[in-house]
Amino acid sequence: MRLAIIGYGNLGKGVEAALLACPDMTLCAVFTRRHPESVKIRTADVPVRAYDDLLNWKDRLDVVILCGGSATDLPDMTPEVARHFHVVDSFDTHANIPSHFAKVDEAARAGATLAVISAGWDPGLFSVSRVYAQAVLPQGRDYTFWGKGVSQGHSDAIRRIPGVLDARQYTVPVQKAVARVLAGENPNLSTREKHTRECFVVAAPEADKAAIEQAIKEMPNYFAEYDTRVTFVSMTELAETHSGLPHGGSVIRSGVTGLQGEHKHSIEYRLTLDSNPEFTASVLVACARAVFRMAADGGVGCKTIFDLPPAALSPMSAEELRAQML
Amino acid sequence: MRLAIIGYGNLGKGVEAALLACPDMTLCAVFTRRHPESVKIRTADVPVRAYDDLLNWKDRLDVVILCGGSATDLPDMTPEVARHFHVVDSFDTHANIPSHFAKVDEAARAGATLAVISAGWDPGLFSVSRVYAQAVLPQGRDYTFWGKGVSQGHSDAIRRIPGVLDARQYTVPVQKAVARVLAGENPNLSTREKHTRECFVVAAPEADKAAIEQAIKEMPNYFAEYDTRVTFVSMTELAETHSGLPHGGSVIRSGVTGLQGEHKHSIEYRLTLDSNPEFTASVLVACARAVFRMAADGGVGCKTIFDLPPAALSPMSAEELRAQML
Repeated sequence: MRLAIIGYGNLGKGVEAALLACPDMTLCAVFTRRHPESVKIRTADVPVRAYDDLLNWKDRLDVVILCGGSATDLPDMTPEVARHFHVVDSFDTHANIPSHFAKVDEAARAGATLAVISAGWDPGLFSVSRVYAQAVLPQGRDYTFWGKGVSQGHSDAIRRIPGVLDARQYTVPVQKAVARVLAGENPNLSTREKHTRECFVVAAPEADKAAIEQAIKEMPNYFAEYDTRVTFVSMTELAETHSGLPHGGSVIRSGVTGLQGEHKHSIEYRLTLDSNPEFTASVLVACARAVFRMAADGGVGCKTIFDLPPAALSPMSAEELRAQML
Repeated sequence: MRLAIIGYGNLGKGVEAALLACPDMTLCAVFTRRHPESVKIRTADVPVRAYDDLLNWKDRLDVVILCGGSATDLPDMTPEVARHFHVVDSFDTHANIPSHFAKVDEAARAGATLAVISAGWDPGLFSVSRVYAQAVLPQGRDYTFWGKGVSQGHSDAIRRIPGVLDARQYTVPVQKAVARVLAGENPNLSTREKHTRECFVVAAPEADKAAIEQAIKEMPNYFAEYDTRVTFVSMTELAETHSGLPHGGSVIRSGVTGLQGEHKHSIEYRLTLDSNPEFTASVLVACARAVFRMAADGGVGCKTIFDLPPAALSPMSAEELRAQML
């Protein structure tokens, strides 16, 4: 399987690393909208090319993995590339998935290619877990907890406050709430009861820390609805203690069976991730395998992880899966 | 969707209850190898028929759910029924899955039907969790813990000891081992280190309890490799405290990503079930939905849960899934 990456940020680097762990896949090129000479990648002998050069690779690539951002890159790039290549992206703006799907589906059908959008863990593996759990326990209730993990969006929001030099924000699930859900209590949980927000902030020397703290805690949508803790740290401490991108969380469905709903059940899917981008990248790569196979079987158009049989993601054959994994 | 159940034990009763929670499905008949008049089911106006009458229902059923046992019923019954109907079974003798698959596949192809075997939670949802986790984290290690839950096989083994009137055996995961796995230690765990076995035994009045305890603890394959605790109880206590069939467990994959494997990740899928048969039945019913749809799309032959796209199990449409679940 011959693959290419478009975009060499954290996610693209994660895909590069993930491909090295897959003997059935070869990274053939990295495409970038920066100057290709300015991008140094870590795999030997793999060329870096300009994005505009992509079409010249039409016969040399099986699947292209798009590693741009959901806000500005993927809405245009995924349909554009899907007209010519089988693709996978990690589009994660939940509310816009239906419209993104429609655009990519139209492009992929026009190009007779296969696209999988919104691969990753949420959307992605978390979504799959929700679908299985709801199908198996139709009488029940879903809960999703995120973290402990770094939210880039919230970190960026803090950085935009005047006087802030840098910041890192952790989303932290409230353990008491998780425990109540797992106990089958089916609680109604407010936003505040599910997660807290923990912020590590580097302030400029002359900045008004009290004002910064207030600006964070009162920021609508991002922090106002949460219990938020702000800790000021030095640039050195931020770099030493908070440079990673851990994340994770759990999807829990609590439901009942029996003629009178007399038996309780819980299904919990939990991820604990040292590196959010590398794990997301690993899901993209597994989905690229499915795209390759389903395209070879004549698959065309846009799909999501809901449409991929689990076997299609695995390097094992159907016989091996049945003998070793079932 | 018109469904029938074959076999009205714990699993068949669970399917009956699960179907009542699915508005898109109708239970049309229960088939039994007992005298149909001797079987009283709990759904009004649904007929109980002799197994030999099944072929007369060929045009009245979409999917047949087989609720017999893996030891003696399903090896012959699934291929037999698959020659004429789309079927789902819960065949769970792991070592014999490849040969069962081959027989059912041959029968289903001969009959142009679609069969899904080995649906349930292990094999079943646990297996699916393993496949996703291995595909996403190829550098890693799998662990499965079962329980706390009742093992019917181990309970039966105790009941066969002379002097034992009744017994209930719980498989209990060793929490320290689970914690080590979740911490990413990748431990090598012996059988004894992973699970303990807890036995509640009713002895005949004249029986030699010490001899019974020794017979249990030294029983090869079932107990000798485990730390086993035996508690003698009265028939009343067994009935009052140990009449349920809870089960569950967790599948954990611990793996690494990054060029040097520098980032650890864990994926944990955990089930906590009040009723093993009712939950297994709920999986069978969700798989029956997938069978119906995939058969309508021309699917033929034997499949497993690995071959079913998650969307096929859900009552939601593809559009609803993308908008609400992704």
